[in-house]
Amino acid sequence: MITKLKIVMLGFGDAGQAFARLLLEKHNEIREKYKYDIQVVAISTGSRGSLVDMDGIDLNLTLSNMKELNKFDQNRKDFSKLNSMEIVEKVDYDVMMELTPINIFTGQPAIDHIKMAFNRGKHAITANKGPIAWAFEELQELSKEKNSLFYYETTVMDGTPIFNLVEKTLEFCKVTEINGILNSTTNFVLEELANGKDYDTVISEGKERGFIEADPAMDIEGWDAAAKTAVLLNVLMGANTTPVEIDRMGIENIKREDIEDAANRGKQIKLICHGSIENGKIVGSVKPKEIDKDDLYSNIKGTSSVVTISTDLMKDLTIVEHDPEIEQTAYGIFGDLLRVIRNIN
Amino acid sequence: MITKLKIVMLGFGDAGQAFARLLLEKHNEIREKYKYDIQVVAISTGSRGSLVDMDGIDLNLTLSNMKELNKFDQNRKDFSKLNSMEIVEKVDYDVMMELTPINIFTGQPAIDHIKMAFNRGKHAITANKGPIAWAFEELQELSKEKNSLFYYETTVMDGTPIFNLVEKTLEFCKVTEINGILNSTTNFVLEELANGKDYDTVISEGKERGFIEADPAMDIEGWDAAAKTAVLLNVLMGANTTPVEIDRMGIENIKREDIEDAANRGKQIKLICHGSIENGKIVGSVKPKEIDKDDLYSNIKGTSSVVTISTDLMKDLTIVEHDPEIEQTAYGIFGDLLRVIRNIN
Repeated sequence: MITKLKIVMLGFGDAGQAFARLLLEKHNEIREKYKYDIQVVAISTGSRGSLVDMDGIDLNLTLSNMKELNKFDQNRKDFSKLNSMEIVEKVDYDVMMELTPINIFTGQPAIDHIKMAFNRGKHAITANKGPIAWAFEELQELSKEKNSLFYYETTVMDGTPIFNLVEKTLEFCKVTEINGILNSTTNFVLEELANGKDYDTVISEGKERGFIEADPAMDIEGWDAAAKTAVLLNVLMGANTTPVEIDRMGIENIKREDIEDAANRGKQIKLICHGSIENGKIVGSVKPKEIDKDDLYSNIKGTSSVVTISTDLMKDLTIVEHDPEIEQTAYGIFGDLLRVIRNIN
Repeated sequence: MITKLKIVMLGFGDAGQAFARLLLEKHNEIREKYKYDIQVVAISTGSRGSLVDMDGIDLNLTLSNMKELNKFDQNRKDFSKLNSMEIVEKVDYDVMMELTPINIFTGQPAIDHIKMAFNRGKHAITANKGPIAWAFEELQELSKEKNSLFYYETTVMDGTPIFNLVEKTLEFCKVTEINGILNSTTNFVLEELANGKDYDTVISEGKERGFIEADPAMDIEGWDAAAKTAVLLNVLMGANTTPVEIDRMGIENIKREDIEDAANRGKQIKLICHGSIENGKIVGSVKPKEIDKDDLYSNIKGTSSVVTISTDLMKDLTIVEHDPEIEQTAYGIFGDLLRVIRNIN
């Protein structure tokens, strides 16, 4: 017997659209393997309209709307005026996907979306790291209380498995330290500055290639890396911290001369995320550090990222993600959905 | 209610002893979490005697026997004359651990041990890569037929999760290519030769530090790497290949001048394991290759190892294990035992 699994998507940006394409591609395979017919019954966006159709939204049509109109066609029969919170609160669904843009200083309104879903006994997946950086412990407890599943694998390294790796393969290991290069913008900028380019050229090239935001301040000042560090410390070390508690220094004051001076001593400057236990307290930092050319981290180039997880029983384990594209984020969300399917009652 | 889980260990070398120590440390935690009381009811060795005790062998005493006598005390009441195959065939147990030394050219007698366990409806864990390199498909099918669980996480990178990573976190991904540096002896030798040491000095230093075998030929000639490559291709790509089918070239003919010549061009020579699909056929190779200094692989130093798994949906994912010690292998076996516990029945 085939069971219908109804999902709502809050947000339909690049990652949401890539997820929709992947779902279209794998829909029948999932149906065959798990006996679930996945249907997207609602999609909300901030400024492109919303869609609601309890029989399942036509994703092909929706993707071509975005391509042709850059918004949803208001003449569609499934066009809706409901906003994100109204969809979370009123629509009948099984799984909510929080794919809205992050507010790095509050985690809202994504936190409230997820709370509402749990309070209604629904499952939640978030690709928005705000809720995990700001309210992980509270959300985790609420999900348990309500018997809701809660997954967030894409919040740090797109689809690269970190949380599932630790949960599924490092049981009984205690995480004692975390290191990483987790912000692609700063990694790219530092590398290109070292190659002799000037800052403005590097930023405009990054924007053209699509991975530097219109306003790159959140990346350059280390806020994105601080949020990811908070996520790692909250999930893997039980820190119950927030981005503002991470000891943060961006790369905005790094000068060409600093980079050249480091290079003359065989070093490279990288923005390093770090978490460890000091005097019984879990502390996190994001800071530019000089990395030796013999260090693995010196060869994390461009938009690649890396995390090293140190544990008592398995020592250090390093995972590298190479030049991720939006399809990897889509796979991460897809993987979380598969986890819901496997663990649903 | 607490259920007794009876295990037999074939082999009690460094990894077996480290596993016994870890089991002693975590026994009560497992009992509390999973309600299983793990008891080692038999241990066999090639030349140090065997032990059988259905009430559970005293592991502390056994470890001190090894430390003090380098064999089992023949006056112990649990001392036994049964050999490995007799233990697999006759003792009452739930899980067999195959920890005997590998025969790289046949995979035997480990393959027969595992077959016997499955034919008796028992579960099996192997840290011996021979069976996976030589007979994976057959053993996998037999385990399914007999409803036996079969785990082998330590066979390629000690405790580093590779197979579980792919199974648990990369579902629906098709593995299209594999690369790696998987033999620590050759990696260490090539690095030390590049540092200007001569071959004999390097080998004797490695022997002193305990990670180069008395006869290093299997490592130097690439056989160990070929067996690991066969394991990866069999498990992750369904290749049904064997070590002799891997296109293998060791480092025995690499001269100091080759290394210096590469260094002059900014390159390092590393022994690279590779698997890919060519004309619809899965092919594997082990060969010394020149690696650029900007390549991540150039910074895999000493006894560290690395594997990169390329898939259709998640692109390339790299995992690095840093300077593993015997405790990491022990954790790998322990992790496989936890998987048995979670998936039993």
